Amino acid sequence: MAITIAVDCMGGDHGPVVTVPAALDFLRRDSDCAVILVGREDALRPLIGAAEAEFGVRLSIRHATEVVAMDEAVATALRSKKDSSMRVVADLVKDGAADAAVSAGNTGALMAISRFVLKTLPGIDRPAIASILPTVKGHTYVLDLGANVDCQPEHLLQFGIMGAMLVSALEHRDLPSVGLLNIGEEDIKGNDVVKRAGELLKASGLNFFGNVEGDDIYKGCTDVVVCDGFVGNVVLKASEGLAAMIAAGLREEFSRNVFTKLAALVALPVIGAFKRRFDHRAYNGASLLGLKGIVFKSHGSADAFAFGCALERAAEAARNRLPEKIAARMAAMVPLPVLAE
Amino acid sequence: MAITIAVDCMGGDHGPVVTVPAALDFLRRDSDCAVILVGREDALRPLIGAAEAEFGVRLSIRHATEVVAMDEAVATALRSKKDSSMRVVADLVKDGAADAAVSAGNTGALMAISRFVLKTLPGIDRPAIASILPTVKGHTYVLDLGANVDCQPEHLLQFGIMGAMLVSALEHRDLPSVGLLNIGEEDIKGNDVVKRAGELLKASGLNFFGNVEGDDIYKGCTDVVVCDGFVGNVVLKASEGLAAMIAAGLREEFSRNVFTKLAALVALPVIGAFKRRFDHRAYNGASLLGLKGIVFKSHGSADAFAFGCALERAAEAARNRLPEKIAARMAAMVPLPVLAE
Repeated sequence: MAITIAVDCMGGDHGPVVTVPAALDFLRRDSDCAVILVGREDALRPLIGAAEAEFGVRLSIRHATEVVAMDEAVATALRSKKDSSMRVVADLVKDGAADAAVSAGNTGALMAISRFVLKTLPGIDRPAIASILPTVKGHTYVLDLGANVDCQPEHLLQFGIMGAMLVSALEHRDLPSVGLLNIGEEDIKGNDVVKRAGELLKASGLNFFGNVEGDDIYKGCTDVVVCDGFVGNVVLKASEGLAAMIAAGLREEFSRNVFTKLAALVALPVIGAFKRRFDHRAYNGASLLGLKGIVFKSHGSADAFAFGCALERAAEAARNRLPEKIAARMAAMVPLPVLAE
Repeated sequence: MAITIAVDCMGGDHGPVVTVPAALDFLRRDSDCAVILVGREDALRPLIGAAEAEFGVRLSIRHATEVVAMDEAVATALRSKKDSSMRVVADLVKDGAADAAVSAGNTGALMAISRFVLKTLPGIDRPAIASILPTVKGHTYVLDLGANVDCQPEHLLQFGIMGAMLVSALEHRDLPSVGLLNIGEEDIKGNDVVKRAGELLKASGLNFFGNVEGDDIYKGCTDVVVCDGFVGNVVLKASEGLAAMIAAGLREEFSRNVFTKLAALVALPVIGAFKRRFDHRAYNGASLLGLKGIVFKSHGSADAFAFGCALERAAEAARNRLPEKIAARMAAMVPLPVLAE
């Protein structure tokens, strides 16, 4: 069965010059897929022409008059821009014209619009954002990354279920392991919400590993790491900051003088191999989970390669019917016991 | 005025073989200081003899019969080991025999014992742990790192005050900038506790920078970064995990074959310079803040160089009367307005 992806071509720092070539490349690589390019037709057509791509069943344009800016207020994007490319990709998924939507636009607006248009799955209180981080062993899925800042234990349980189904859909693993992000210092071992979430996860029937600590994320202890959106967002950004600092520091040391520059020349292929191994572009494509439809968020600064990775992830999630998987898993949950008064 | 440091020689992964030489080196470097080496005399004496150090006003031993193990339950350490080296260093500070205590032992036990023996300063509800992280611009102080997992806005305000006074004591800066760790995603912009903490910090008279995000830590946006102990602990450990992963990845790429090994030889001095620049050992010495006395915690795996850095930080904090600074700043706080009913 062919998978159709609705691509918000206007989103991201670069817009159509990145999204259109990435979508056309994706079509060439994946003969099983179709794309609907959504955005201002006058901006999209020349890029398609330049690539000598042909319109047809697999490639079409859906004109959208408006664009949600990267710094646009969520309320404005949601209420006043009903013909934005971001809104239209969500509408296409809602109407069944597309199997998944991908956007590199403003995360807050994308989450609000997707939630408004698609609604959440039965039993899911709040959608979450899941992203992939590299680990010593491969990679891991972390959620939530910023959609939910004040979580109850039940939300963390739902994140565990959604994360496990995401790994199952994208990596074809039956019982992905789920870790709960916690701290090991002190005898307190975590706050009350996390403690109770651990109990819920233990009773959930998921392959619950137990608590993991910050360093366990990068050790690759579990396939999924669950945390509230505040912690997840801070960890993700702190990691980006640390990696950038290390990269800048290495670059500076290698360009200090003529000798270090010569050393850089010799070391270049090795450093290149290292960079390819941990290439953050390959991990691009965060999933907005818990909706009645598939929405993937690309990093705003993604280049064509990175945006293509997000498209591939969205297609794989659609092929493996991610929302249905989550809905089925939620339906199979034993209801929580009603607490005695 | 001479500063006396009580050194818990038994703590840490390595114990006296690291702590004693580090303390003796510290004495040689800092002629203004004295140390009391605390621990099992039979374990300490041979190491002092081997270093040909002489006892006197600046160097003495205080025998302690017990040792708090690295994985010891906090309750056991606190209640049943009243003659542990960790307990004795806190007692020495309490009695005025020492100006500061340094231990590489179990963090939870050290915090519990220090709090029990020394008590908190007036106005401080909970002590916090502050550590130093490298940044693009130099370094920054982050607290809390795990002592407090369920914080109220008032606690985050107190962390801001304590952190600012720590920077003022260790770096001789009058108005260190204080940032509040928050998230920028979504329109929610942080949870309720953090929002209210921001208001309190704004009204505090501190040099409050405003919100900072995870990546701003390593950009060095502020001198102090305030967060609750759960978030701080996760960020610290995730950073350690990421740095370890990057180091291991580089090592692996450079040792892949004979060519990469040759490249490694050429690149070695440059990588060495880079490592020295971000040497985490130089940042060793976390401060237990908010107590009526100075206690520094060394990393358990610290070597003699790293342990020496913790000793130097403790001496500097004592020289600059850190607890008095915090107490004075707390006393100068305008009482919070009583909320109208």
